Amino acid sequence: MDESTETRTAGAGAGAGAGTGAGGAGTAAAGGGGRTGGGSGSGGRAMTRRALLVGVGAAGGAGAMFAAMGALGLAPGSQEKSFAPPQRSDFALQGRGAAKVVVLGAGIAGLTCAYELGKAGYDCTVLEAAERIGGRNLTVRGGDRLTELGGETQTAGFGEETYFNAGPGRIAPWMITMDYCRELGVPVEVFVNNNASAYVYTAGMSAPVRARTARADMYGYVAELLAKATDAGALDRRLTGEDRERLLEFLRRFGDIGEDLAYRGSDRRGFAAYPGGAEGVPLPGPSSLGEVLAAGTGRAITMDFGFEQAMPMFQPVGGMDAIVTALARAVGGDRIVTGAPVTGIRNLPGGVEVTHRGGVVRADYCIATLPPHLLARLRHNLGAQVAAALRTPVPAAAGKIGLEYGRRWWEADDRIYGGVTETDLDITHIWYPSHGYHARSGLIVGYYNTDEAAEAYGALPHRDRLRRALTQGKKIHGEKYRAELRSSVSVAWHRRPYAEGGWVRWPSHDGGFALLQRPAGRVYFAGDWLTHLVAWQAGAMESARSAVTGLHRRALAATS
Amino acid sequence: MDESTETRTAGAGAGAGAGTGAGGAGTAAAGGGGRTGGGSGSGGRAMTRRALLVGVGAAGGAGAMFAAMGALGLAPGSQEKSFAPPQRSDFALQGRGAAKVVVLGAGIAGLTCAYELGKAGYDCTVLEAAERIGGRNLTVRGGDRLTELGGETQTAGFGEETYFNAGPGRIAPWMITMDYCRELGVPVEVFVNNNASAYVYTAGMSAPVRARTARADMYGYVAELLAKATDAGALDRRLTGEDRERLLEFLRRFGDIGEDLAYRGSDRRGFAAYPGGAEGVPLPGPSSLGEVLAAGTGRAITMDFGFEQAMPMFQPVGGMDAIVTALARAVGGDRIVTGAPVTGIRNLPGGVEVTHRGGVVRADYCIATLPPHLLARLRHNLGAQVAAALRTPVPAAAGKIGLEYGRRWWEADDRIYGGVTETDLDITHIWYPSHGYHARSGLIVGYYNTDEAAEAYGALPHRDRLRRALTQGKKIHGEKYRAELRSSVSVAWHRRPYAEGGWVRWPSHDGGFALLQRPAGRVYFAGDWLTHLVAWQAGAMESARSAVTGLHRRALAATS
Repeated sequence: MDESTETRTAGAGAGAGAGTGAGGAGTAAAGGGGRTGGGSGSGGRAMTRRALLVGVGAAGGAGAMFAAMGALGLAPGSQEKSFAPPQRSDFALQGRGAAKVVVLGAGIAGLTCAYELGKAGYDCTVLEAAERIGGRNLTVRGGDRLTELGGETQTAGFGEETYFNAGPGRIAPWMITMDYCRELGVPVEVFVNNNASAYVYTAGMSAPVRARTARADMYGYVAELLAKATDAGALDRRLTGEDRERLLEFLRRFGDIGEDLAYRGSDRRGFAAYPGGAEGVPLPGPSSLGEVLAAGTGRAITMDFGFEQAMPMFQPVGGMDAIVTALARAVGGDRIVTGAPVTGIRNLPGGVEVTHRGGVVRADYCIATLPPHLLARLRHNLGAQVAAALRTPVPAAAGKIGLEYGRRWWEADDRIYGGVTETDLDITHIWYPSHGYHARSGLIVGYYNTDEAAEAYGALPHRDRLRRALTQGKKIHGEKYRAELRSSVSVAWHRRPYAEGGWVRWPSHDGGFALLQRPAGRVYFAGDWLTHLVAWQAGAMESARSAVTGLHRRALAATS
Repeated sequence: MDESTETRTAGAGAGAGAGTGAGGAGTAAAGGGGRTGGGSGSGGRAMTRRALLVGVGAAGGAGAMFAAMGALGLAPGSQEKSFAPPQRSDFALQGRGAAKVVVLGAGIAGLTCAYELGKAGYDCTVLEAAERIGGRNLTVRGGDRLTELGGETQTAGFGEETYFNAGPGRIAPWMITMDYCRELGVPVEVFVNNNASAYVYTAGMSAPVRARTARADMYGYVAELLAKATDAGALDRRLTGEDRERLLEFLRRFGDIGEDLAYRGSDRRGFAAYPGGAEGVPLPGPSSLGEVLAAGTGRAITMDFGFEQAMPMFQPVGGMDAIVTALARAVGGDRIVTGAPVTGIRNLPGGVEVTHRGGVVRADYCIATLPPHLLARLRHNLGAQVAAALRTPVPAAAGKIGLEYGRRWWEADDRIYGGVTETDLDITHIWYPSHGYHARSGLIVGYYNTDEAAEAYGALPHRDRLRRALTQGKKIHGEKYRAELRSSVSVAWHRRPYAEGGWVRWPSHDGGFALLQRPAGRVYFAGDWLTHLVAWQAGAMESARSAVTGLHRRALAATS
């Protein structure tokens, strides 16, 4: 659900890297998301390119590889973009209009399908179970009511300028989410995903430290260790004399170590009082190598190393739901039916029939964008294989709490402007707002957790989630964290109607994952869960494009 | 002049780090800026704290140190802020008003002085040599004319929404510049100082690579080398068994290395085509360890490690001169006289007399905020020591060029949203705009260089600077870099009237630096050049606060 890295695992990326993944967001986040296993999908053309490049690289080294990339349009500056949206003119010579399509779900996947099909004049109807559209793209504002499965209803008491992106919160610049923002006129601003002034707090520490301090100390000692080993000749079998000099030069920059290669601290750690008229007052420290290693700051330090997490990231101005609003406006509100939970899907000869609470819709095609575990519960005639495939991915628990304060103490007192505090407490992260800097009030995300931690918080009523989140956050920010709170809202995605999970994880990309890329009769599937970008809006959009492309190709063939 | 790190050197920071500094901005930027040597200034209280903390640290370790910091108000969350602005009420019991002050220079230091003194009712007059205010805080807009010493005049042909921060461009969140933005109601937004999608291009490369790729490869190999050395027992004298396990765990995260500790690439490098419906298409590579070291990407990788450069950084919405505009409004336009170059300063018995092109101003006090090398040229009676001190700091050359394009190709084609491309070409950096994302047009900074490179560009007429900058940038971005250009403006700060330098460097903080912290008779000095934040607006503001505090204390004493 969230623009998060939770679902990524190692091994599938460039060059067969077999490491520990990106560090990512969660505590218990190792789970097998979008990229475990083989994968299939529409990658035929891509695989051909990949095979070609691997061949060129083996034969000619990086220079030849780069030249080949240029020839393929893959050199710096190019991105592979093969999507051609359906156009009205595609039908021009065929003497009749586009087909009728019923789209199930008005989340990002469903709205993108209807938007793209609408460009060519398809007659789309979007059925949405909830009373609101957007799916997991959920921006909570003052007065909004949230009811969870099990019954508790929260009403957001936020002030007028406060919003809480309870679902996706960030966009990487390479994602097609950015293209849709541009195309739809949704202004974007930087989402601060990494802040040197935020804190790191682990069980190995007596008190939180600034991220910049944790980083400087770890890098300082890593540089010292490797520089001294290099200097002592321990790497002479691996390094030429020139390599050695270059490595030492790098390590001096990297760790800010001394001429004697020792790390004794650095002004990169920050200051107790920053320089100004006077020199800066240094922080105490650094601690010893053993203490720095024991502090366990590695996850925090590497949190933005992943290709989905690297700075800068972005968010729509005014709330993530600006994307929903813009898509819905482009689709046309009259095409979207809310409060219409679907109960059945049937392929008919020459069409499809969808039953929902308010009636029955017949159409030429259907695109089903509900989460697979919810699709699996519908009455349908899509066959046993499809039914089994829909039951394969496993929904994951995820939760967030929004804490509104009447004073932006994180800016005024702590000099934290946006970004994330990382902790191994069960709150996992604290997000500071990347907008409204210096405003009177603001909202921080007091936890964003997954799996067991999310289950634990989700099992509590809101007031107990809040109490627990405040108790934890107070360990980092002190009493004001509790005392200055104005209002709060929490969401447990696995308890939210029509979502019942933050996202899903595929145990494997064999079988069901591949099967559902193809239509079952006249029923297409779309959603982030069908891509290698699970839990990202970009996945939903990519999947929508894929479904729309397939449907349109078929529609053109059928009418010609 | 710029919010830059050019002037910083190692050794003065926390914990006696003796390293190579922050990596920083320039090619030839090792020069001796604000923090060389001993330092003095108003640091008495700070030094006491420092001494106390060092003592506590030596005796009791980091835990005791942290506790002591808390007691001193230095624990996380606190910042040392000792400034109390002059207040009208300070004079309340004295039966008369505040004194008359003439401020020389309407740059950030001068305007801040007049603003702070104005709060207590001082009768300030600000004399500015140029026809515009702001000093090196210079935002160029369409129609602006810039004339350099030597005579050439450029007229900016920018479109309506384009601006070019030709002077300072970025603000670190711990700087008091942020406090003034908050106090004055100047909205701020993120300045992207580090972008994983930007390029690195060095003489060691056949083609530019993305910053994320350069970083992943260097970290991958560093992790591999240290992990293997650790695993082979080369560090057993330094590491306990527990240290070793923790270090290996860190290195796996840090370098994304395999179970066998080898680096073979990682999806952190980015992709030729990013994952979506299909798996990502990997980039070719990585190159061998020797090739990666030879590429010389260290400066680029560490560019944001310094405490003044760490992400996130900030900028005023709409141009850096928003700070100037807000200060001037608060001061009152009628108190600022432009086109009034000062020619002489004289201490008189009980007052001061300033001669300028338009006449003579008498006041109780003067605050001189001109650059020291310009102050040194005035007729004055401030004494031989002051004269010698003003001649001590050495002005540095610095230059920037703004390149306006009618299409934001860096976003549309390269997926670069803000940030900096680092190169060892003489353009040093390319800055992409951190605002107006997805707009129709935009402006990039085609070079920001210092010292010899800035001298070389500055010596050329604008059209040749432009030609040279385009030839260099084309090596990174290809033909569009030249072909799609719409207009351009360059500034050579060392050739700019009333600046004649980007900033200054003190050969030492002994002697003159300390002397000029104190008034010469009734003449106070202020400017970034008198602080440990040379070249930053925050330095100018800190210095202004210091001068104002001294002047006000004296004024209160004199009138009581």
